[in-house]
Amino acid sequence: MKIVIIGAVAAGSKCAAKLKRDNPNFEIEIYTEDDHISYSACGMPYFIEGMVKYEDLIARTPEEFEKNGIKVFLKHKVTEIIRREKKIRVTNKDNHLVVKYDKLVIATGATPITPPIKNVKAKNVFSLRTLEDAKNIREIMLTSKTATIVGGGYIGIELMEAFVKNGLKVNLIEFSPQILPVFDFEIAELIKAHILKKEKENVNIITSDGVVEFVLENGIAKKILTQKGNELESDFVVICAGVRPNSELARASGLELGIKNTIKVNSLMQTSDSDIYAVGDCAEKTNVITQKPAWIPMGSTANKEGRTAALTLSGKKEPFEGILGSAVTRYFDFTVAMTGLTQKEAEKNCQNIITATVTKEDIVSFMPNAKSITVKIVACKDNGKILGAQAIGCGDAIQRINSIAALLQTKGTVFDLLNLDLPYAPPYSPTIDPLLSAAQIIFNKANK
Amino acid sequence: MKIVIIGAVAAGSKCAAKLKRDNPNFEIEIYTEDDHISYSACGMPYFIEGMVKYEDLIARTPEEFEKNGIKVFLKHKVTEIIRREKKIRVTNKDNHLVVKYDKLVIATGATPITPPIKNVKAKNVFSLRTLEDAKNIREIMLTSKTATIVGGGYIGIELMEAFVKNGLKVNLIEFSPQILPVFDFEIAELIKAHILKKEKENVNIITSDGVVEFVLENGIAKKILTQKGNELESDFVVICAGVRPNSELARASGLELGIKNTIKVNSLMQTSDSDIYAVGDCAEKTNVITQKPAWIPMGSTANKEGRTAALTLSGKKEPFEGILGSAVTRYFDFTVAMTGLTQKEAEKNCQNIITATVTKEDIVSFMPNAKSITVKIVACKDNGKILGAQAIGCGDAIQRINSIAALLQTKGTVFDLLNLDLPYAPPYSPTIDPLLSAAQIIFNKANK
Repeated sequence: MKIVIIGAVAAGSKCAAKLKRDNPNFEIEIYTEDDHISYSACGMPYFIEGMVKYEDLIARTPEEFEKNGIKVFLKHKVTEIIRREKKIRVTNKDNHLVVKYDKLVIATGATPITPPIKNVKAKNVFSLRTLEDAKNIREIMLTSKTATIVGGGYIGIELMEAFVKNGLKVNLIEFSPQILPVFDFEIAELIKAHILKKEKENVNIITSDGVVEFVLENGIAKKILTQKGNELESDFVVICAGVRPNSELARASGLELGIKNTIKVNSLMQTSDSDIYAVGDCAEKTNVITQKPAWIPMGSTANKEGRTAALTLSGKKEPFEGILGSAVTRYFDFTVAMTGLTQKEAEKNCQNIITATVTKEDIVSFMPNAKSITVKIVACKDNGKILGAQAIGCGDAIQRINSIAALLQTKGTVFDLLNLDLPYAPPYSPTIDPLLSAAQIIFNKANK
Repeated sequence: MKIVIIGAVAAGSKCAAKLKRDNPNFEIEIYTEDDHISYSACGMPYFIEGMVKYEDLIARTPEEFEKNGIKVFLKHKVTEIIRREKKIRVTNKDNHLVVKYDKLVIATGATPITPPIKNVKAKNVFSLRTLEDAKNIREIMLTSKTATIVGGGYIGIELMEAFVKNGLKVNLIEFSPQILPVFDFEIAELIKAHILKKEKENVNIITSDGVVEFVLENGIAKKILTQKGNELESDFVVICAGVRPNSELARASGLELGIKNTIKVNSLMQTSDSDIYAVGDCAEKTNVITQKPAWIPMGSTANKEGRTAALTLSGKKEPFEGILGSAVTRYFDFTVAMTGLTQKEAEKNCQNIITATVTKEDIVSFMPNAKSITVKIVACKDNGKILGAQAIGCGDAIQRINSIAALLQTKGTVFDLLNLDLPYAPPYSPTIDPLLSAAQIIFNKANK
C-alpha cells in the first residue's frame, strides 16, 4: 500500500505519523511546495512577538519523519492529480515527476486572502502563512516603529499584541463594523473598549473601512489609503484578511467541492473519489450543532481529521463528527473565547432565541486575584438547547467555554447547565459560577 | 405565608433571599445558634492564611437581611420541631420561645467530627466550623511555630498551605493510607510527592495512622500520640476529620433520614413532611451518575438547593437533579480537582472499567508558561460512558474537570470526548488537549 500525502503542516503530518505507527509496512510519501513540514502555524504570532523560539515552532523535522520511514519531498509542488491513473504530477525546480499512489491524502491547507488593494505586492506588505513569512515579519518589526494590520480577526489581534509588546504603534483596519467579526457585535465592542482603554497611545482601530491603495515610494508602501478617505502611514503592513482553502488541485481533478470551495468529505475524511482523502484546512467540516456544512479552519480540528483519515486508511472506522466552532485567543491578559453559535448565527437556525449576558468575577470576589469576565449564552427557547457561548475578560474565560463546548457536543440544555455541578473553591470559581448565573437568567426568561 | 428557616450559612441564606425577592409578602424568619449568617465557610482557610479579610467572608449582614424584610434571630438555638402543631421551640440564653410556621426549611449544615482522642477538648485543639473558630485558629497560628493537622482532606490541605505560608512547620496525620482519600490512590500519591518535594523542610505527612491521645500540660496538648507509636509535638492542633450532617432536630421530630444520617429529601428539597424542607449540608443528595443517594457537602450545592427550595415554596417546580461530586482545591499553585467517580468508586457501579492517565503540558509546550498536569479519566467499557475524571498539577487542571463535569451531566461518552471541539490556541491548550489524549488511549483500549 502506497499512500501519498500532499502538504503536511498539521493534518498531513499527523496523518502520516499515525499511519506509519499503525502500519509499519505502508509506503508513505509526503510532497509539499513548502520548505518545512509539521510546524505550528498558530504559534507564529508568538514567535514574531519574541516569546517563542523559531526552532520550537517545528514539531517534527523532515529528518525525524525519514527516520520513521516516511519519505518527505520538500519544495515539490504537486501540479495535477490524474485520478483515473492514480498518479500525481510533481514539479521540483526544473524536474517533473509522476508519482503513483494507491491512496492519496490532500492536506493542502489554506492561503491568506489577498484583498483587491492597489500595489498589494509592495515590498513591505506581508501576509502570514509560512515560517518564512513569520521570519520576515519579525525581521521588519524589529527595525520598525509603526505597523498596520489589515483585518481584525484572531491573527490580527495576536499580531497587534506582538507589535505593541515590541514597542510599535499599530493601526488595525477591519472591513466589518466590529473587530473579531465572529463574535456578536456588543461582545466585540467590549473587547475593543478594553484594548483601547489599555492602549490609547499605541493602537488605532478603524472599523467599517477597507484599504484601497498602498501609495508607493521606491517600491515600498508609504501611505495607506482607505475607502472612507483615511490616510495612514506605517513602516510595514500585514494583511490578515482571512484565508481560503487550497482546493485548486482537487477542483481541477473533478473532486466534488463543498462550502466556500472546500473539498467535500464524509465523516471518514473520504472525498467523492474513494481513493482520495482530504484533511485539515482544505476540507469541509460539519457543524455539530446545525448539522450543516461549515468551514472554520483550526489546528486542533486538522489534527483530529489527520487522525481520522489515518484510522480509515488502516481499516478502522472512527467517524469525525465535526466542529462546534470553538475558538480562543487573547490580547495580553484579556481572553476572548467562544464555542457554538453566536446570537447572529443562532437566529438563522432557531426562530426563538433566548440569551443571557453576565459580567461577574471569575472567582470568589474576596480573593485578591479575582478578575471580571463577561459570559453570553445563547439558547433555543423552543427546546431549551444551548446553542453557543462567548466569554471574554481578564478572568478565567476559557474554563467556562470548555464547559459549554462539552454541553454542545452532547446536545445539553439550559436545565443541564442550571444543575451543573462545577467544582467549587474560592480560588477557582464563585459559589454561583458565571455560567450558572447566566443559566438562571435564561431559565427565568424561558419560563415567562 | 410564614416561612421559618433554621440555619443560614449558605443554603438557608440563599433560600431566604430568593424567597423574599420572589414573594415580597412572605413572612420570613431565620433562627440560628450562630453569631453570624451568610458567610463563606469555604473562604475561612484563606482568611486564616491572611489572604482574605474577615469582613469579606460575610456575604450579607443580618442588617441587610432585615432591611429586605427578613427577620434574623442570631444565638437562637432551635431545640425541637413540633410537627403536628407546626411549631418550633427556640432557646435564646434563658428565654424560651415557641414559633409557628407554615413552612419550615432546615438548613442546619454539618459539624466537624470529633474523633475519639483522649483529651480532645484541650485548649489548643481546634476544629473549623464557625467564623469564631477561624479567628481563634488565625490568632494562635500567628504566635506559633508548629501546627498539627488531623485529617488530610481538602480542608486539611488548605490549612497546611495557610500555616506553611505563615512560616510554620506542619504535621499532617491522616488515618487512610493516602491524603485526600476521595482521590484514587496513585493520584493522591502524586499530590503527596509534589507537596513533599516542595516542602521537605516544612511538612511532615503521616498516613495510615491516627491520633489516640493528646498529652496535657496545663490543659494544653503538649504531645500527640498516635496508634502506631508516633510521638509528635506542636503548638496547636486542628482537627479536620470530616463532618457529619446536623440532622438531630429532624431525626427527633420523626423526619425520614437518608444516607449517613442526612435528612431525606426529594428533588424539590421536600422532606417526608410536605411542610418541611431541608437544604444544604444537612440534606441528602443524589449522585447524577449512579442515581444513588450520596452525601458530599459543598457550598455550591447548598446554593442550588436553597434556590430550588425557594422556587418550590414559590409554587414553581424546578427539580434539582443532584451532584457529580465535583471538587477542587490547591496546595499553593498545585491544583487538585475531580468530578464524577474515581476508579475505586466506579468499580462499585460498573463491572468493566477502562481508565487512562495522561501527564502532559497544559498548553503548547513551546509557550514559556506551559506547566504539567496529570489527567485520569474513568469510563465504563460496556457503554462507553464517562464516569469521572481527576486532574492535578501546576498547570490548568480546572478547565479539564469543567469539561468532564459537563459531559457527565449529559451522560456523555468517550466518543463525545474524542470529538470534543475545545477552543485551541497556544496560550490556552496544546493542539491535542490532555483530555483528548486520554480519550484516545481509552478508545484504543476499548477497541482491543
